Amino acid sequence: MKQQNSQQAEDYYPSRNGQPSIFLERQDPVVYSTDKNNCPIEQEKIQQYQENGFIVLEDIFSQSDIEALQAESTFLRQNSKDKHSGEVILEPGSGEVRSIFKIHESSAVFKKLATDKRLASLAEYLLGDKVYIHQSRLNYKLGFRGKNFYWHSDFETWHVEDGMPRMRALSMSITLTENYSFNGPLMLIPGSHRSFVVCEGETPEEHFKSSLKNQEYGVPTDQSLTQLVEEGGIVTATSKPGSVIIFDCNVMHGSNSNITPFPRSNIFLVYNSMANQVVAPFCERSPRPEFICTREKIEPVIPVVSNFNNE
Amino acid sequence: MKQQNSQQAEDYYPSRNGQPSIFLERQDPVVYSTDKNNCPIEQEKIQQYQENGFIVLEDIFSQSDIEALQAESTFLRQNSKDKHSGEVILEPGSGEVRSIFKIHESSAVFKKLATDKRLASLAEYLLGDKVYIHQSRLNYKLGFRGKNFYWHSDFETWHVEDGMPRMRALSMSITLTENYSFNGPLMLIPGSHRSFVVCEGETPEEHFKSSLKNQEYGVPTDQSLTQLVEEGGIVTATSKPGSVIIFDCNVMHGSNSNITPFPRSNIFLVYNSMANQVVAPFCERSPRPEFICTREKIEPVIPVVSNFNNE
Repeated sequence: MKQQNSQQAEDYYPSRNGQPSIFLERQDPVVYSTDKNNCPIEQEKIQQYQENGFIVLEDIFSQSDIEALQAESTFLRQNSKDKHSGEVILEPGSGEVRSIFKIHESSAVFKKLATDKRLASLAEYLLGDKVYIHQSRLNYKLGFRGKNFYWHSDFETWHVEDGMPRMRALSMSITLTENYSFNGPLMLIPGSHRSFVVCEGETPEEHFKSSLKNQEYGVPTDQSLTQLVEEGGIVTATSKPGSVIIFDCNVMHGSNSNITPFPRSNIFLVYNSMANQVVAPFCERSPRPEFICTREKIEPVIPVVSNFNNE
Repeated sequence: MKQQNSQQAEDYYPSRNGQPSIFLERQDPVVYSTDKNNCPIEQEKIQQYQENGFIVLEDIFSQSDIEALQAESTFLRQNSKDKHSGEVILEPGSGEVRSIFKIHESSAVFKKLATDKRLASLAEYLLGDKVYIHQSRLNYKLGFRGKNFYWHSDFETWHVEDGMPRMRALSMSITLTENYSFNGPLMLIPGSHRSFVVCEGETPEEHFKSSLKNQEYGVPTDQSLTQLVEEGGIVTATSKPGSVIIFDCNVMHGSNSNITPFPRSNIFLVYNSMANQVVAPFCERSPRPEFICTREKIEPVIPVVSNFNNE
């Protein structure tokens, strides 16, 4: 089933190529480092990450760190509403800001956050390499009218649409508001990162313009999801503000709608291994824009000890 | 602010009459009976109901009862798909059956359930009167694509659109599938039953045709909801199959979407006091059809000891 893309890179995870939905075995490690002595967090957590495809770390950031990150988030959101650039995604109905991309470039605070040793060194450990930011964004899920986000593997999209060759990337979601069970928190299927679910259909041109609001392609079939959930169940990542949810690029995740008055806001940083830089997309489409997928400006992150007081 | 409807009944809870959203104090008891010796459940639960506006009773039905109710539910759903009568509500996208109304008339099993002593005697106790079924339905919330249901007080609609004079009714939801935190379970705001939230706007003609799918009128403002939640919080009614969620007609409730593979199914029975029979609607619209609001065939329920084995 292996194919090659236009740059003649081998395609280990073909998807949306007209094949019916099947499971392919993961061909890449989950945790790349083996040197337990240099591990920045407890090995038990690393083991959990290996098995489930995600971990939640609490109390990483101090109260003042959290407040500084929240303040920067509010500032950016309030000052981006009228920016009709691609980086700013508005809610279809209300016109409120739903996401702002590339915040590790546009915000000094979030640039510093991306290099924060507590995050970046852990990313290096898990991926066993120097890392760079493949994508960053600030998400704001409205209260009352927050939409659901359907199940997906990030890697499936990053591979097909961005040309990310292998599973050697991860996401860190830094929560800025409390994730209750009822305000549309992240749901994950433990163990789902060990299989690659081939998605049906093909990729429309400029898919990103609609998929950021409502993904219709690159979604698994009901049958695939049922099988994954039968094997792994569903875990809801409830957490206090300032927690960090770290999840493998291929773990299946999604979220329900949010009709409660509690908005849900987080910073989303995707670290990719320097050895896993994107090539041409594994589909017959143009690459997505730089704000969604770093392609031109790939720079290794240098981990720095930081705090966010008095910013 | 009191008004009168076309039958000259006094309107204690005017809503959708062009007034801005305000809170009116409840003018009716929550628990009407005072004779503690004749209470069919523990007084502690009655006290909870009084304070929060709802209770969850588990282990009311035996395993074989539950299986019989589930079997009848599946049968009805499978045999109603092609019935394009008003009683059967289909999901807009998939054409699957979302709700079937008036099941206490159309199904012998559910007719018996509505008179089951475990339910009907408790309804009589809480409402302090003989009771009848104001509305009944079977709900089926799809997995994967189950829609959310926005916050509302049932009484607001029953009062305005059906002409239910006072707050002397309650709902019993008998769960047929497990209500997890993540498959769009019922969410309730404890204490919200003590205030009547006047809704803005007016009532469109034949509102029920759209409101059963997506309610746009008779919904509280963001500000009202925020205040209710600040005071009472949100409780998610997670429960095993066969549990009974009993909630006051005026408690604010709703549910999020369901993208998990687990469907959510329940039987919904509304008991109203015989002394609280509907009059003309408290709006300038025709009454809703009989399958949504019992108006012609009002018969007191006679509680009977039942089981559902070998149906």
